[in-house]
Amino acid sequence: MTDAPRAAARPALAVTTGEPAGIGPEIALRAAWALRAEANCVLIGDAAFLALTASLADPAIRLAALSVQALRNGGLPRFGPDRIAVVDVPLAAHVVPGRLDPENGRAVLATLDLALEGVAAGWFDAIVTAPLQKSTINDAGVAFSGHTEYLAEKTGTAQVVMMLAGEPGAGQPPLRVALASTHLPLKDVAAAITGERLAAILDIIAHDLRTKFGLAAPRILVAGLNPHAGENGYLGREEIDTIAPAIAAARARGIDARGPYPADTLFQPKYLAGADCVLAMYHDQGLPVLKYATFGRGVNITLGLPLIRTSVDHGTALDLAAKGLGLADCASMEEALRSAARMVAARASTIKH
Amino acid sequence: MTDAPRAAARPALAVTTGEPAGIGPEIALRAAWALRAEANCVLIGDAAFLALTASLADPAIRLAALSVQALRNGGLPRFGPDRIAVVDVPLAAHVVPGRLDPENGRAVLATLDLALEGVAAGWFDAIVTAPLQKSTINDAGVAFSGHTEYLAEKTGTAQVVMMLAGEPGAGQPPLRVALASTHLPLKDVAAAITGERLAAILDIIAHDLRTKFGLAAPRILVAGLNPHAGENGYLGREEIDTIAPAIAAARARGIDARGPYPADTLFQPKYLAGADCVLAMYHDQGLPVLKYATFGRGVNITLGLPLIRTSVDHGTALDLAAKGLGLADCASMEEALRSAARMVAARASTIKH
Repeated sequence: MTDAPRAAARPALAVTTGEPAGIGPEIALRAAWALRAEANCVLIGDAAFLALTASLADPAIRLAALSVQALRNGGLPRFGPDRIAVVDVPLAAHVVPGRLDPENGRAVLATLDLALEGVAAGWFDAIVTAPLQKSTINDAGVAFSGHTEYLAEKTGTAQVVMMLAGEPGAGQPPLRVALASTHLPLKDVAAAITGERLAAILDIIAHDLRTKFGLAAPRILVAGLNPHAGENGYLGREEIDTIAPAIAAARARGIDARGPYPADTLFQPKYLAGADCVLAMYHDQGLPVLKYATFGRGVNITLGLPLIRTSVDHGTALDLAAKGLGLADCASMEEALRSAARMVAARASTIKH
Repeated sequence: MTDAPRAAARPALAVTTGEPAGIGPEIALRAAWALRAEANCVLIGDAAFLALTASLADPAIRLAALSVQALRNGGLPRFGPDRIAVVDVPLAAHVVPGRLDPENGRAVLATLDLALEGVAAGWFDAIVTAPLQKSTINDAGVAFSGHTEYLAEKTGTAQVVMMLAGEPGAGQPPLRVALASTHLPLKDVAAAITGERLAAILDIIAHDLRTKFGLAAPRILVAGLNPHAGENGYLGREEIDTIAPAIAAARARGIDARGPYPADTLFQPKYLAGADCVLAMYHDQGLPVLKYATFGRGVNITLGLPLIRTSVDHGTALDLAAKGLGLADCASMEEALRSAARMVAARASTIKH
């Protein structure tokens, strides 16, 4: 019993199991079991429901239930790789797979709160989140705009950066795409890309690639906002007025940022080969190619938080959950666990963080 | 000697050689030579300059010069695959590779005019264009906004559609991405996506996939404009107000259009597998993934014209041209020729066109 961070060799990952009516509980269980030799996953959710799900999904899975009180009293006990720890955060209502129930909204939120508490207390080295359904939490009477925003708010973080990452194929270098704007209507994107915003985002990317990825001198390729990166002002002036100055200023701060480049050129493998990360200006400029390249094995990583947080790159798949267990693909969840474990190790090997 | 269209087996392709100071002449020569067994390429450009370029690029290349007057008098002579025909359209000034010279702007334009004349006269089955430099033509005193716009205007075509296509890998089905808007500043994209525009574009795509690609019942996947295709109106209303109604109307006209889908989901191989074409709403939503997937072997195809026209997916590469011959990659040009040849064959096998 100790509340010191786990050894980097087998980090303790808090895994919130997400919307109970979706595929989250199943993929969390299966992925945690598959990776039990690499990571000490601690699932956070309703222990009875998870035990039922595990027994139906794969009878080989062995769980060990913990109460929140036990954690608070004694920290995270050491478990070997023969079982997955489950911290019990009980649901309010019976779960019908595929059917959302606002009665369970607050319990889903409580799993996030416990993960944050556990990182602060040193029980957990990182947080990995299964998908949740925003509407369920809102319908439970809690204003909630997403995992990322919630974690930022609770940790007092003014700016976070969404990054998707994945490996295009065996042995290929990872493709990492960070976004300068995320869930905005397209017509509002241009106005959202300010010099201040880009400065903060470039600082965060460079900092986190150093401290959470162990890259000593990360190189960031920055996309333009307009087609052909504005073609010298003929197709928009944001590159000239905002993006190029932000890149120049970042370089003056010691960040190896380059661009702005046309997005359709930039994503060719020959340019990506020399880069650690691409900064796309908006959601659909960067994510189609990332998801194409990584075949649904992408991982969502939140940069800028004072903790390591990864997630899957897909939603709750209520339709699939309604059809029964055994249909969901847990590849993205496995990658999210693996990425978090790697980041914990990289952070541990970074002198300053 | 005949001016009837060539046999589909070895179609006659008019290949305009583009900006003489760029890589166009070299890639046109090398690609035409590489594909001489499949296509009767007729290069249009300065015969003396092309002969010099060919002798330096690959001494094996054999050319046969033709005058415009000879074509007009007797049509295109039949050539075997042992040489490439060159129709002489003389340049005004000596070419220095890498250095643009407005003196040659009108000659570049004259190659396009001759290609159009030759298609109308039945000398050529299709047009394949090497890249040109818009500024050279404008600096020569002719208002010119691009190949595609010029061909549309000269053929009296009100609406054309830019489509990029390529093969992601050996044996994989082609990826085809058409664009609902092209060279617009990002901030102007949302306003440009109107119901009328989408109706015209879906009609053109469906028509051309049938008549120029030989697809009896083409399926078109339509992307949303906003991230997550607007997420039921939370991230923009264009999907609800404009795109979904345009798709429904197209379906009522017998077009198998589907969507709108989130662009980052849509481009996953499992969804693309069942589709003949993706309609992206704008340039950087569709082209990064296309160019990533096709590794610079993409082909630009102009839909909506009363003729077959393909092109490379890259520019004039003046820097590379300045360094000398033998450096440019002619893979995209080869694919442009191959695609045009295939389209000529498909058109010939389509009953109505």
